[in-house]
Amino acid sequence: METVETLHMNKGVDETSYAMNSFLQRKIILLTNQATKKAIVEILCSTKRWPIMKMGIADLGCSSGPNALSVISEIVEAINETSSMMNQTAPKELMLYMNDLFTNDFNNIFASLPSFHKKLRQDMGYNNHDNHNGSNCFVSAVPGTFYGRLFPTKSLHFVHSSSSLHWLSQVPRGLEDERGKGLNKGKLYISKSSPNCVLKAYSQQFKNDFSQFLESRSQEMVHGGRMVLSFMGRESMDPTSPNCCYQWELLAQALMTLVLEGLVEEEKVDSFNAPYYTPCFEELKMEIEKEGSFMVDSHEAYEIDWDTGIELQSGGDTMSSGERVAKTLRAVVESMLEYHFGSHIMDELFQRYAKHVEDHLSKTRTKCINLVISLVKRQ
Amino acid sequence: METVETLHMNKGVDETSYAMNSFLQRKIILLTNQATKKAIVEILCSTKRWPIMKMGIADLGCSSGPNALSVISEIVEAINETSSMMNQTAPKELMLYMNDLFTNDFNNIFASLPSFHKKLRQDMGYNNHDNHNGSNCFVSAVPGTFYGRLFPTKSLHFVHSSSSLHWLSQVPRGLEDERGKGLNKGKLYISKSSPNCVLKAYSQQFKNDFSQFLESRSQEMVHGGRMVLSFMGRESMDPTSPNCCYQWELLAQALMTLVLEGLVEEEKVDSFNAPYYTPCFEELKMEIEKEGSFMVDSHEAYEIDWDTGIELQSGGDTMSSGERVAKTLRAVVESMLEYHFGSHIMDELFQRYAKHVEDHLSKTRTKCINLVISLVKRQ
Repeated sequence: METVETLHMNKGVDETSYAMNSFLQRKIILLTNQATKKAIVEILCSTKRWPIMKMGIADLGCSSGPNALSVISEIVEAINETSSMMNQTAPKELMLYMNDLFTNDFNNIFASLPSFHKKLRQDMGYNNHDNHNGSNCFVSAVPGTFYGRLFPTKSLHFVHSSSSLHWLSQVPRGLEDERGKGLNKGKLYISKSSPNCVLKAYSQQFKNDFSQFLESRSQEMVHGGRMVLSFMGRESMDPTSPNCCYQWELLAQALMTLVLEGLVEEEKVDSFNAPYYTPCFEELKMEIEKEGSFMVDSHEAYEIDWDTGIELQSGGDTMSSGERVAKTLRAVVESMLEYHFGSHIMDELFQRYAKHVEDHLSKTRTKCINLVISLVKRQ
Repeated sequence: METVETLHMNKGVDETSYAMNSFLQRKIILLTNQATKKAIVEILCSTKRWPIMKMGIADLGCSSGPNALSVISEIVEAINETSSMMNQTAPKELMLYMNDLFTNDFNNIFASLPSFHKKLRQDMGYNNHDNHNGSNCFVSAVPGTFYGRLFPTKSLHFVHSSSSLHWLSQVPRGLEDERGKGLNKGKLYISKSSPNCVLKAYSQQFKNDFSQFLESRSQEMVHGGRMVLSFMGRESMDPTSPNCCYQWELLAQALMTLVLEGLVEEEKVDSFNAPYYTPCFEELKMEIEKEGSFMVDSHEAYEIDWDTGIELQSGGDTMSSGERVAKTLRAVVESMLEYHFGSHIMDELFQRYAKHVEDHLSKTRTKCINLVISLVKRQ
């Protein structure tokens, strides 16, 4: 099953929507701010022909809700600040491309575009309706998987991607035995109990996907162009370390309680595997060197609390930690789980998951790790 | 009130949706086929550097539903056929831009993109995932009003627009007296009974909008680029001729029966004016010459039955002509009417409208006029 068919953040703006439950992702975007600003400065300073007339900028996996436009808004701000700091005119035309899978709620983003354009005009002098002079800012949506070509050759100067590259293009192959029985019994993702072949299959799928990602961007980006990529990963070499898979572990435990009560078939659990992977820096580096078009400019790892960003949420403090973590995960993975297990068990599943998380966090403050890696396209 | 805030085709795929009721627009798209093919041939033949590496193509006012992708599909087919007829390789990269207002149902279009790409790969060798060789076809959505800049400078070779340019950017100003009372009493659009100032205000708004349209495209298109524009218009010099305003006349009559029964306030009717205009060729020509960047290559006027295209609709023949016309109009104008009159009267209004249409068509086969005009960007 390809991810493109089953993964989308929860649509709309209700209680379980991604728009209302993406504070963790918001905090993760903020982690990339420094790297983004640095990349913009380097792009604008390294150009031989100043000013750049047309600048192509892509946010890959932009999702929907308030985060979607905040990313490109901050990029435009960085371009404006850098240009004015250097006492230069900003690029005359900015092409801002919003990318996500076909099933993403782009209508939600577009509904906010008029106020986005208004803000650009007021704050920064960018203007999508100015026919006569000055700068122009063109926003478009480019739906499709970033594990393939999305943009014309040499059309991008800067690529940003946050909370997206940990999603694989598909569930790895080879997670079933010859009779079609799931090998990763009782689990949804890599776990301490997973057989070695499961670990290998996941690692191989990530390598294939990430190298496809690099190859595609390599063709789309200009020389000297830059990427800032931010996604869940790990610092440990061990893919079963709790920092990178314990949220899935607890979700599997919650599901297995439903199995015990006969509400879910055990085989259903055995046959589900999340198209997700948390790489370590060494795995990334190996693929980057093998592909050859990009150099690593910098990389950092950040420890993130499971309920990070909840302080941004109004009414967030009336919930337990477990409930808050459950809401955040639900907004992201529900579409996929629903497809496999049916929508009827979702409320029950995430209530139980919230309790498992609450119980776990009362004993151990397990964190997750977010990697931020900054790449330069070679000359 | 700007059109951008209130006009969108009915969303979704239910009985009153635009997706299920856009057969008339489908037929109108078919009318542009010849002009589109000719324009593609001229673009590909007139280029000095063959083959064109990157070709930018925009469909302005693409709407949603099955028509949206059929237009660009036919354009890609024409490019492919022309290239092979001339024994040349097709442009290596096609950028296909789908434009409509912010409130258009782009999610509906994107849901069909995977099968669209599959068809391109199978039928024409175009491929959005082919990283290694051959041609690539990049589809993106560019939301916003076409009465302003939408695309970077000199990025378009071909522009198509069907059933869109008869929508004004806003309701014309000056349709109220000094006390704020509507001057176009009992009507929704230009009518035989409209005072002369109403006719003038409409004509002036169209001229302003159309010249903005031309100026914006002039900057966005390459020299020798071509536009095929298709929209409701008239052959008569008289803007009150039945061919261009009698559908609105009957809708106003239906509304006035609701006024008589106290279901709608008369002032509400007086204060509503559709942001719509059906120009004659002479008006278009005057603006084209004034703006100066485009030459008219050809223009044609087609008579269209009000219920044209109904033969394409499954179950269409179990309805009366009136019902079919009412469904087609409702899918287009309901969002605007709802905003002004409230959603509670929509069913009743369109039932009455269907009867008025039925009654009218039994006496006179009034048609509407669709203009197709083909323009070339001057060197």
